[in-house]
Amino acid sequence: MELEFVRRLRSRLPPHRLLEVGPGDDAAVVALAGRTDCVVTTDMLMDGVDFVLSDVDPQRIGRKALAVNLSDLAAMATVPTAVVVSLALPRQGGFDLAERLYDGILPLAAEFDVALAGGDTNTWNGPLVINITAIGRLTARGPWLRRGARPGDEILVTGRFGGSILGKHFDFTPRCREALQLHERYTIHAAMDVSDGLSLDLSRMCEESGVGAELFLDRVPIAAAACALSASVDTNVRPIRSPLEHALADGEDFELLLAVPPDEARRLLADQPLGDVPLTSVGQFVAERGLWSIGTAGTRTPLTPRGYEHETNQ
Amino acid sequence: MELEFVRRLRSRLPPHRLLEVGPGDDAAVVALAGRTDCVVTTDMLMDGVDFVLSDVDPQRIGRKALAVNLSDLAAMATVPTAVVVSLALPRQGGFDLAERLYDGILPLAAEFDVALAGGDTNTWNGPLVINITAIGRLTARGPWLRRGARPGDEILVTGRFGGSILGKHFDFTPRCREALQLHERYTIHAAMDVSDGLSLDLSRMCEESGVGAELFLDRVPIAAAACALSASVDTNVRPIRSPLEHALADGEDFELLLAVPPDEARRLLADQPLGDVPLTSVGQFVAERGLWSIGTAGTRTPLTPRGYEHETNQ
Repeated sequence: MELEFVRRLRSRLPPHRLLEVGPGDDAAVVALAGRTDCVVTTDMLMDGVDFVLSDVDPQRIGRKALAVNLSDLAAMATVPTAVVVSLALPRQGGFDLAERLYDGILPLAAEFDVALAGGDTNTWNGPLVINITAIGRLTARGPWLRRGARPGDEILVTGRFGGSILGKHFDFTPRCREALQLHERYTIHAAMDVSDGLSLDLSRMCEESGVGAELFLDRVPIAAAACALSASVDTNVRPIRSPLEHALADGEDFELLLAVPPDEARRLLADQPLGDVPLTSVGQFVAERGLWSIGTAGTRTPLTPRGYEHETNQ
Repeated sequence: MELEFVRRLRSRLPPHRLLEVGPGDDAAVVALAGRTDCVVTTDMLMDGVDFVLSDVDPQRIGRKALAVNLSDLAAMATVPTAVVVSLALPRQGGFDLAERLYDGILPLAAEFDVALAGGDTNTWNGPLVINITAIGRLTARGPWLRRGARPGDEILVTGRFGGSILGKHFDFTPRCREALQLHERYTIHAAMDVSDGLSLDLSRMCEESGVGAELFLDRVPIAAAACALSASVDTNVRPIRSPLEHALADGEDFELLLAVPPDEARRLLADQPLGDVPLTSVGQFVAERGLWSIGTAGTRTPLTPRGYEHETNQ
C-alpha cells in the first residue's frame, strides 16, 4: 500500500533541472549554484511504530534518529555535514524527554563531525515524533547509486545480518567511514544500505539496476542475534524462523550492500580493508531478472524477497 | 517553557567550523566543500496544534507546510532549491490524505521552482504530522540575518498584519521573490519573517541585534482580517481586542520585517518596488535596549511583546 502510494507519488513529481538524483535512492543529490555536491535525506521516527517510548531509554531513540540518516548518506558515499531536528513532544515531561533525545544525538553528531544546524521543537497531545534531515557533500568521485549493478558483479555486504531487534537497530554504527574508505580506493558499481531486510533490499537494487541476483545461502553472514532470536521464539505465538531466515528478512541491519566488478571484488575480499567490519561476497548479479537462492548442493530456487515494508523512503 | 528549553539546548550545541549561521536565525547557513551557500530550514506541523484536520481541506495544509519553510528562506534572502517531505499519516484514509497534501505542495513548489527531492512516508495510529525541510542557496550578496539592526535604522515591513487565522495563515504567499528583489537592489541591515507576531518578532530582532526599537502605532499596516476578527469576537468568551492589538500579536502574517539604514529606507519607500505588496516604515531602532510604542500624541510607552510562543524554531 505505501509502496503503491510512493510509486504513484513519484509519477506525479516533475523532473527538476537541479535534481541530479531524485526520489528513489537512499538520498537525493541537489545542485546548488551549479555544483552537484549537496546530498539530502530525511527520516521520521514515531512512537509505537519505530520504537516504544515506554520500553526504551530516549537517548537510544535520539541516537537512532540520527544514525538512520547517516546510514542513508553512507549508502551514497557522502560526507555527512549538517542535520536539522524536528520534535513533536508529549506535553507531559516533553522537555526532559527532549534533553534525553539530545543526549543520544549530540555524541553521535560529534563522532561523525556533523553540525547541528537547527530544528523545530514543538509540544502536543500526541505521541513522540522525531524527524531528522541530514545533508552532506559528495567527494570528487561522485555518489554511489542503487542503479549501477551489472550482470557478473559480485554482491558484497559489510557486517552480519538478522536479529537487530535485540539491540542493534538502536545501537548500530552507520557505515559512513567504511563507505568513504571503499569509495576512495575501489570501484563500486552500486550501493545501498540494508534497512528493510537483505533479500528485500537486494531485490530493490536489482529492480533499480535492471538485473537479477543469485544469493548463496551458505555465504550469508549471520549475526549472533539472529541465532538468539531464532532460539528464543515462543512457538505458541509464531513459528520458528531459522537464523538464516532472520538474516534474510529482519531488516534494520544498516549494513552496506554493494555491487562490485569481479576482479575488484577479489581484491577487496583479499584486502579486507575495513578492520573489524568483515566484507563478504554473498552471490552475484545476473542478467535474468529475478532473485534466486543457491543452496549448499548448488540447487537454484526462486527466492521471495521479504522484509519490512511499512516505512517507505522515497 | 519551550523558549527556555531551546536556550538550554543552544548552550549545549558545540560550534562547528562548517556552520556559518547556526541555530537562532530563520535558517542555517552550511558550508559545503568550502562554499557558504547552502541554507537549510525545517518546520513540523501537527494536527490539533497548527491546524485541525477535520476543519480544513488537506490541500491547504500541504501548501502551508511548504510555504512556512519558503518564508524562512525568504527571511534569509535565499533562493529556494529543494525540499524533502516527511509524513506520519493516520492509517485510516492516510494515502488519500497524502494525495491531497501533495495537491497543495506540488503547485507551490512549481511556482517557486523548488525540486521535491524525496521524503519519508509513514502510517501510524496517531494524528497527521507533516515535516518539511527546505534547502536553498544564497546569492553572491550573502544572507540576511536577524542580528544586523543598528540604532537609527528604520523598521520596514511588507504587507499588512493581524487576523491571519481567518485564512491568510494557510494561503499566504511566502515573500521569496520580494526578498530577493530587495536584496539585489537595496542595503538591508537585518531581516526576518514575522511568524509569531509583529511585536514579538520585533523584540527578537532587537535582542539578536543588541538594540531597542520604537514602534509608531499609527503607522502599523492593519489587515482587513484584523478588523473583521476584532468585530467578530464573542465578548462572553474573551475580551475584545482592537484591530491594532491583533496586528501586533496575532502572528502567522509571514511578512518581512527589515532593518534599513535611513537614507536607503527613504529611497525604498519612495520606490515602492514590490508592486502590489506595500512597504511601510513602522518605526526605528534605537540604542537603548527595549521596546516602546509611540502613540499618536507622541507619547512613548514601554510595549510588551506579544505573540505565539508555542512553536519554537531554533
